[in-house]
Amino acid sequence: MKIVRDRLRLAGALTLASGQSLSEVDIAFETYGALSPARDNAILLLHGLTADQHAAGPPWHEKGRAGWWNQAIGPGRAIDTDRFFVICPNVLGSFGGSTGPMSRDPATGRAYGMRFPVITIADMVAAQRQLIAALGIERLHAIVGGCMGGFQAFEWMSRHPECVGSAVVISATARTNTHNTALWSVLRAALMSDPAWNDGDYYDGPSPDAGLGLLAMTGALFWMSREALHEKFGLRTIENRPLRYTLEPEFAIEEFLARVRRNAGAGNLDANALIYLTRAIDYFDLSREYDTVAEALARYTSPLLLVSYATDWRYPSQEMNEIREALEPRSVPVRHEILDSPIGHGAFLYDFNGLEPILRTFLSGDFSGGRGDRPT
Amino acid sequence: MKIVRDRLRLAGALTLASGQSLSEVDIAFETYGALSPARDNAILLLHGLTADQHAAGPPWHEKGRAGWWNQAIGPGRAIDTDRFFVICPNVLGSFGGSTGPMSRDPATGRAYGMRFPVITIADMVAAQRQLIAALGIERLHAIVGGCMGGFQAFEWMSRHPECVGSAVVISATARTNTHNTALWSVLRAALMSDPAWNDGDYYDGPSPDAGLGLLAMTGALFWMSREALHEKFGLRTIENRPLRYTLEPEFAIEEFLARVRRNAGAGNLDANALIYLTRAIDYFDLSREYDTVAEALARYTSPLLLVSYATDWRYPSQEMNEIREALEPRSVPVRHEILDSPIGHGAFLYDFNGLEPILRTFLSGDFSGGRGDRPT
Repeated sequence: MKIVRDRLRLAGALTLASGQSLSEVDIAFETYGALSPARDNAILLLHGLTADQHAAGPPWHEKGRAGWWNQAIGPGRAIDTDRFFVICPNVLGSFGGSTGPMSRDPATGRAYGMRFPVITIADMVAAQRQLIAALGIERLHAIVGGCMGGFQAFEWMSRHPECVGSAVVISATARTNTHNTALWSVLRAALMSDPAWNDGDYYDGPSPDAGLGLLAMTGALFWMSREALHEKFGLRTIENRPLRYTLEPEFAIEEFLARVRRNAGAGNLDANALIYLTRAIDYFDLSREYDTVAEALARYTSPLLLVSYATDWRYPSQEMNEIREALEPRSVPVRHEILDSPIGHGAFLYDFNGLEPILRTFLSGDFSGGRGDRPT
Repeated sequence: MKIVRDRLRLAGALTLASGQSLSEVDIAFETYGALSPARDNAILLLHGLTADQHAAGPPWHEKGRAGWWNQAIGPGRAIDTDRFFVICPNVLGSFGGSTGPMSRDPATGRAYGMRFPVITIADMVAAQRQLIAALGIERLHAIVGGCMGGFQAFEWMSRHPECVGSAVVISATARTNTHNTALWSVLRAALMSDPAWNDGDYYDGPSPDAGLGLLAMTGALFWMSREALHEKFGLRTIENRPLRYTLEPEFAIEEFLARVRRNAGAGNLDANALIYLTRAIDYFDLSREYDTVAEALARYTSPLLLVSYATDWRYPSQEMNEIREALEPRSVPVRHEILDSPIGHGAFLYDFNGLEPILRTFLSGDFSGGRGDRPT
């Protein structure tokens, strides 16, 4: 599988939803496979909050990890790189090389830190639109995105429907919800409680690893369902040892959380990027500039596969169904698959088996001929 | 209503479940109403995690608040002080005057801090048993407890069934659950992330208010149901202002969380006490020393009212039902009322209306004649 790592400097400044602008914008990206001569086999893959553009392949730097969706991408896999040209951009505001709070502010020569402007999901998509054009692609075979990547996919469907040949959206809804906004607020507070965070100016000092660890262990209470935690750990002690009556880790679930905490601090997450990306999600509401979701998607006619997990209480299936209901009256070919998995929100990453055949069939075109007509 | 504030020094040392012992134990308590000459009208009221013995009446000190269950307690109220003598002890390990981590360790002359031994729900009940005896009460008309107070009520029913004339348990289950253990672990980590916490030795320095604030705002994500947060705040901005695209509080839910955070820091919570009390909950499993919950409650025959809230996902109704199922085969008069409230876990405190008539009827004896025989 051919892997290319690249970065694009956008032509000119990028004006943001807030009215502010960024004078220099880079978008880092990876591609897998080869673009066909007709330039019609491109899949735009959009990553979630804590991932980046390294979706496939082995780790490629010291602190790196293997591709976050290796199971899905490769020769003969559901996203078949013998057939498709996969583009995975690092989102604006992130920490994988695209412009974000850790980038150098050309006005000061220092890292932006908290002087970076607030960005939105639509801003991320505006930058991606330029990337696709720069790669000479007019129309994508498909867009695929989960969670924050799913929000971006919805914005693509709303703003650039002519570019979207089909779309797969996993574990995402037409807008954020109150509980998630509350959660992001708490997670940002956890990060900022670390003195090393230093109001965002930590790039020349120690990293706020403690804050990242606290954020990650708090987040784990939400990504995983109550049922998944129960099944996996129950009330067992570590190694089934007799009770010691201590404040040190005693239960298996505590050992798990301690590991989540350590790993977050040791990873390549950037605290400020998480602050800005979660804020972008807070502002996500597909229908903000419209009366309804149906209006926001009025120009979208391509096939759409929605996938949700019954155990995902971050973005519940019934809320995701709003998208289906918005498109069905126009006979857009939309399907909503509700999968079972004990994992909850992260299931598309950690429990790929249920999704694999559905994704494979959809991308190979079973659904893609029917622009505007509904299969029966 | 007659309110008495008092404190009992237990006779001798208290041996704990861990095998350690506390040489000097005080239990602070309040009483409302008057004990009848026959000493048969006492109700033992057991408070939850962040409450204390001040269940009824106006604030009585500078940082104080009004009684946490004023709605329920008083002349003519559901817990009618014209009729009942209500005893509300501050639990062992807490911050209302009972012995806990902020108490002076007689061995060193300094506050215990994190040198306080780990305690259990059963240890709390052992101290309460001595308090009841010291008040000259052999048998309680009723025990009433919610959440952590409900765990204590279950231990009373298991260990001292001869003392329990009836019991009301609200929003509690026969054991803790994995997700709660995970939550307490995260909340303790949030507290301890505050440098002012200082390994628990903060009594001579600044209070860890920031840690308490972070704990409280994280907890708010759990006490309240997802639905309650949605109904109350939605995605509204503060005062419905136009979007400002800022990291400052922008949404109504953020303003709410900021208030929760400020109030926690300004209240009279003690960080170390919360650490020890949540740890006690981690160890709670009514059937730990038995094969089953039914065995743990084998000697209990008095009427029991269980109350849960359909929206409480901390202690779900179906898990609470285990208690009912354990008692029904022996025809113990047990009833499980599942109430609706948008509030979730804290509903018995903040949305008392649904509970009021049920509690009133039960305590006034509609259920209490039937020791061992089931009403039809």
